[in-house]
Amino acid sequence: MESKIPVGILGATGAVGQRFVQILADHPWFEIASLAASARSAGRPYGEACHFILPGDVPDRIREMPVLPLEPGIPGKIVFSALPADVAREVEPRFAAAGYAVCSNASAFRNEPDVPLIIPEVNPDHLALIPEQRKTRGFPGFIVTNPNCSTTGIAMALKPLDDAFGVEKVIAFTMQAVSGAGYPGVPALDIIGNVLPYIPGEEEKIAREARLLLGRVESEAQVPADFQVSAHANRVPVIDGHTICLSIGFRDPPAVEEAMDVLRAFRAPAPVRELPSAPVYPLALRPEVDRPQPRKDRDAERGMVVTVGRVRPCSILDLRMVVLVHNTLRGAAGGAVLNGELLIAKGFVS
Amino acid sequence: MESKIPVGILGATGAVGQRFVQILADHPWFEIASLAASARSAGRPYGEACHFILPGDVPDRIREMPVLPLEPGIPGKIVFSALPADVAREVEPRFAAAGYAVCSNASAFRNEPDVPLIIPEVNPDHLALIPEQRKTRGFPGFIVTNPNCSTTGIAMALKPLDDAFGVEKVIAFTMQAVSGAGYPGVPALDIIGNVLPYIPGEEEKIAREARLLLGRVESEAQVPADFQVSAHANRVPVIDGHTICLSIGFRDPPAVEEAMDVLRAFRAPAPVRELPSAPVYPLALRPEVDRPQPRKDRDAERGMVVTVGRVRPCSILDLRMVVLVHNTLRGAAGGAVLNGELLIAKGFVS
Amino acid sequence: MESKIPVGILGATGAVGQRFVQILADHPWFEIASLAASARSAGRPYGEACHFILPGDVPDRIREMPVLPLEPGIPGKIVFSALPADVAREVEPRFAAAGYAVCSNASAFRNEPDVPLIIPEVNPDHLALIPEQRKTRGFPGFIVTNPNCSTTGIAMALKPLDDAFGVEKVIAFTMQAVSGAGYPGVPALDIIGNVLPYIPGEEEKIAREARLLLGRVESEAQVPADFQVSAHANRVPVIDGHTICLSIGFRDPPAVEEAMDVLRAFRAPAPVRELPSAPVYPLALRPEVDRPQPRKDRDAERGMVVTVGRVRPCSILDLRMVVLVHNTLRGAAGGAVLNGELLIAKGFVS
Amino acid sequence: MESKIPVGILGATGAVGQRFVQILADHPWFEIASLAASARSAGRPYGEACHFILPGDVPDRIREMPVLPLEPGIPGKIVFSALPADVAREVEPRFAAAGYAVCSNASAFRNEPDVPLIIPEVNPDHLALIPEQRKTRGFPGFIVTNPNCSTTGIAMALKPLDDAFGVEKVIAFTMQAVSGAGYPGVPALDIIGNVLPYIPGEEEKIAREARLLLGRVESEAQVPADFQVSAHANRVPVIDGHTICLSIGFRDPPAVEEAMDVLRAFRAPAPVRELPSAPVYPLALRPEVDRPQPRKDRDAERGMVVTVGRVRPCSILDLRMVVLVHNTLRGAAGGAVLNGELLIAKGFVS
Repeated sequence: MESKIPVGILGATGAVGQRFVQILADHPWFEIASLAASARSAGRPYGEACHFILPGDVPDRIREMPVLPLEPGIPGKIVFSALPADVAREVEPRFAAAGYAVCSNASAFRNEPDVPLIIPEVNPDHLALIPEQRKTRGFPGFIVTNPNCSTTGIAMALKPLDDAFGVEKVIAFTMQAVSGAGYPGVPALDIIGNVLPYIPGEEEKIAREARLLLGRVESEAQVPADFQVSAHANRVPVIDGHTICLSIGFRDPPAVEEAMDVLRAFRAPAPVRELPSAPVYPLALRPEVDRPQPRKDRDAERGMVVTVGRVRPCSILDLRMVVLVHNTLRGAAGGAVLNGELLIAKGFVS
Repeated sequence: MESKIPVGILGATGAVGQRFVQILADHPWFEIASLAASARSAGRPYGEACHFILPGDVPDRIREMPVLPLEPGIPGKIVFSALPADVAREVEPRFAAAGYAVCSNASAFRNEPDVPLIIPEVNPDHLALIPEQRKTRGFPGFIVTNPNCSTTGIAMALKPLDDAFGVEKVIAFTMQAVSGAGYPGVPALDIIGNVLPYIPGEEEKIAREARLLLGRVESEAQVPADFQVSAHANRVPVIDGHTICLSIGFRDPPAVEEAMDVLRAFRAPAPVRELPSAPVYPLALRPEVDRPQPRKDRDAERGMVVTVGRVRPCSILDLRMVVLVHNTLRGAAGGAVLNGELLIAKGFVS
Repeated sequence: MESKIPVGILGATGAVGQRFVQILADHPWFEIASLAASARSAGRPYGEACHFILPGDVPDRIREMPVLPLEPGIPGKIVFSALPADVAREVEPRFAAAGYAVCSNASAFRNEPDVPLIIPEVNPDHLALIPEQRKTRGFPGFIVTNPNCSTTGIAMALKPLDDAFGVEKVIAFTMQAVSGAGYPGVPALDIIGNVLPYIPGEEEKIAREARLLLGRVESEAQVPADFQVSAHANRVPVIDGHTICLSIGFRDPPAVEEAMDVLRAFRAPAPVRELPSAPVYPLALRPEVDRPQPRKDRDAERGMVVTVGRVRPCSILDLRMVVLVHNTLRGAAGGAVLNGELLIAKGFVS
Repeated sequence: MESKIPVGILGATGAVGQRFVQILADHPWFEIASLAASARSAGRPYGEACHFILPGDVPDRIREMPVLPLEPGIPGKIVFSALPADVAREVEPRFAAAGYAVCSNASAFRNEPDVPLIIPEVNPDHLALIPEQRKTRGFPGFIVTNPNCSTTGIAMALKPLDDAFGVEKVIAFTMQAVSGAGYPGVPALDIIGNVLPYIPGEEEKIAREARLLLGRVESEAQVPADFQVSAHANRVPVIDGHTICLSIGFRDPPAVEEAMDVLRAFRAPAPVRELPSAPVYPLALRPEVDRPQPRKDRDAERGMVVTVGRVRPCSILDLRMVVLVHNTLRGAAGGAVLNGELLIAKGFVS
């Protein structure tokens, strides 16, 4: 790639927006050309407008960039969106209508039948919805979304198992990090030394999005996979990294070792595995009896790998296992950036 | 009761032993007559031998009591045992053989066919194993055990549901407090800002003990209930209070409201509900969408109530819910003391 | 006291307001007659308007009480104010002007020369400012304040030492709980596994208020004590309880044992020590080398005692020690209620 | 450097030992030639003998290396020691006597008059004690130590201030991470949601070592600096990174800006600043009012920089400031490795 592709970040000052900045500051294909945020921040240098909550510093070049308003016209071919759902619902279509490729981490359009919900290693072919979306909505650009953070971990672990053994039933118990709620997000008074057994909307998102991701696109429409998902979503006092316990029932139940072999061997299809943010193996299998753990495993492969451990039988369904996903990297900003890379590789953006 | 019944505490200096001291220091029926611990502590005043880890102070009278060795002959009709399993296995039979009623919190004898595993509100009739135990083992005394801390919460929530609707399948996902591992127990380096998705032996204990507790005693033998339990046990950075998510399948699946009514109405059988440590209603149902929570609910009714919330449908089994149990009170020392009270009420100790 | 004195709570739905509800629900002298809060809450039952963040439940009677607007006319002779400083500045004078005795936990009027800043055990005589305040401001009622949470602990520990040895210099280093910042307050993302070495305005409040509390009232004006205080304020991941390390220089430096004797012997003056919320000994001295600790010591004497430990020499000043105060009980709502009791005992309210 | 210098690690399986492995696995000058630990681990492959507690994995090559006994003869010119003090006292002299250069992180020999206690940026000239040590003890090799973790941060911040303005008095308040206590170290039950206001021996170490580091070597003997240090040491629920509040008195008190200029401009002497582990500027000055913070600043410059913030006046001494040091990197393994690099640069090892 001779020169980098200019990209913008919508909602650049928030928790996920900062992750976009961190990932894109040194990206081999993309160059941050614009940072946009709500009226409150617009007009100020990013370094001032943004209360940076990640370790390390805002890169010098980015620090001085002005925050622009959330209006089409800002530099960039792709815009990565870290907007809150309600803002995204209004703003993202304006960008698609102005010709931008919108890679959105927001939940606003994840339910729309013509908007692809993509994990490149899982369902890159769902990009086939883009022409339909453009036609229906009259967009010169388009919107592509990545799933909810927990769902990303679940769907990536399920994908090779579903291909090999046919997933029929999934019970998912999550222990989610506080960064998943954005900033300021969860009050310390609620979560230090405590567990919150409820995250608004999360259980429904997991059930719906997991089936879409493992479903197929047929005659320009999404057909969800026909397994059932029942989720229990919990918040725990962890900074980053969602830990998820799964009980899974299969059409052709594998032995533990067969399942482990399939998880270990999982590779993305050819165009995906060469993307710069894609790990060689999307799943890492830990042999230790007490792994994965969020603090020890979340940063593996720059937070882009999903770690699986404790694969063992389940006396109710067929297998139990533990899955860990870095919720603001693979499960949010990193997932959206990987979608952006896929769009390049597939020729949707050039 | 004119004068109090003298009791001893085995393993009095450990984490659960300290809870026994705290509960029994002002008990209406029992009086601490002896404190026993390993050779390292024996001979020193309790206040010196014990690194007290609970808030508040060792009561003055107790502080000066000498720690005795773990040998029969110490004052007390009942001994409450907070011994580690390997020590309990050796020491508890010696006490039973010397005529003591041993109320053990240890797991050492929970598997023996002739040793009752008791939650008074759930299966007080299992005390019927005592004569058999005495006969088989030639004990003038006997051993009674209470279940594992997580199992206590699970079994108490399942009991009224099983009676009404027939429990068939249970998937239990636990988020357990660090006090469950004793002291020093879990290293801070392992758990601050982290989750450990494994607790040695815990998943097996939950599966086995839940079925024993809801089973029956027939011709002097325990017959486990025939439902299946599959558990996922996790450690989280919480001091006290185990939070457990359940997915439950029933023979006659109830509507959510029916299940809630049954949980709310649950009462212990007549002799149990008058015991001094028994809450009027063993289960508390919280209406809030984000309860129970360990820090807010564990101390309800002096830690003896089990709190249930978020009863809702499950798309794989029938119902989902969240259960909270104070693991070192109801789930350990408090459960054993309640067993001691039941022994008095039933005439096994006088 | 034949019948209880009706009191109101201003800002009843916030973190400190909830502590007022908790303390006053069973108070021997006071009865909650009204609950007032901002327009957003007014008109709704307290149980609905308030997201209760304390363990346990809102008492049934209180739950149904309507939240009233922040306007004089609400039932109560005393109003306890948990208002934010900016709201307090406007609302509290309106109540004093309408004849109420205002016991305020807000910082709004702590700097006014005619408004008493009171810890009953430390400077009950400062109530002598009330007549001056009434005259100057034309209030039929009046405003009395209690100090900042950290300062409360510091001033109580310094008082007997100052009386006996003359405090000249104080370096105070605080490790403050998150509840001190109210609710929602500190974001979990900022504080889990972290320390924040800055609390806005806190260091200045400590320096100023400590000198006022140990100062005197002369010709109807406050004369601050003339020692210096330098504070370092930090936030740590603790729910309740501020831990404070002190290095103190004296005019007549005591030996460690002398200082400990004086701390241990400290009693409030006669009318104060009989107040229902006053502990018999305002200071508790712990002998253990690693105490006080917030989780173990904050709740001693219903959170109203200040715990001191580790009294030892300082090579720069004279003595080092550690002080612990429950920041939302003694350091906030409990301190204000004790001030209210003092007003009764001294005849300012009848 | 044509080929790398072989080094050994003593106590390789512990918390600091693992940091040595992590740092040395890719070191430009050193190559891990041997891993030694107590008899319990010796003979097993490192990957098995070691419960690795750091994020990420043991490098493949290291994982298979056998753990050797703590006996001279193991490959390596330098041995880096992470041994506990009591073991170090016995083992380290055996290695020095066998010709090894021992870079010890243990406290065992920090008090010996002929053993250099070194921070390369602060007192590299103290290596001049080595010939004396060799002569006195008859060692062909020698022992060099690095200071206690907290002292490292304090001494690095004081050094340029002392050079410019003459430090006279230091009060140091520490909030120390749990990794400073090794593994298993601090029990979670003691520290979650809590503060421990005591760390055995720490306050004395800080006072003694800070004066040695800023002192001088004269006629082959250490002459401590003549300022006073009074420390208050606390443990807080943080994984890595010690935060230290300082109040400092000077002979020639600087203005805040002067002090900041001096801190910012601090550079190591010429041979030190080129060492591979030395940051270009040993101190990083943060401008934000709420920095440094352990989670955000500890990893700057691979954990080798000390971060300073909140420089402001002190009403008792002259200046207050906050210092942060990564306790297991710069304050332990990283400091020892930097000492090893200094030994190479100065020709003590070749």
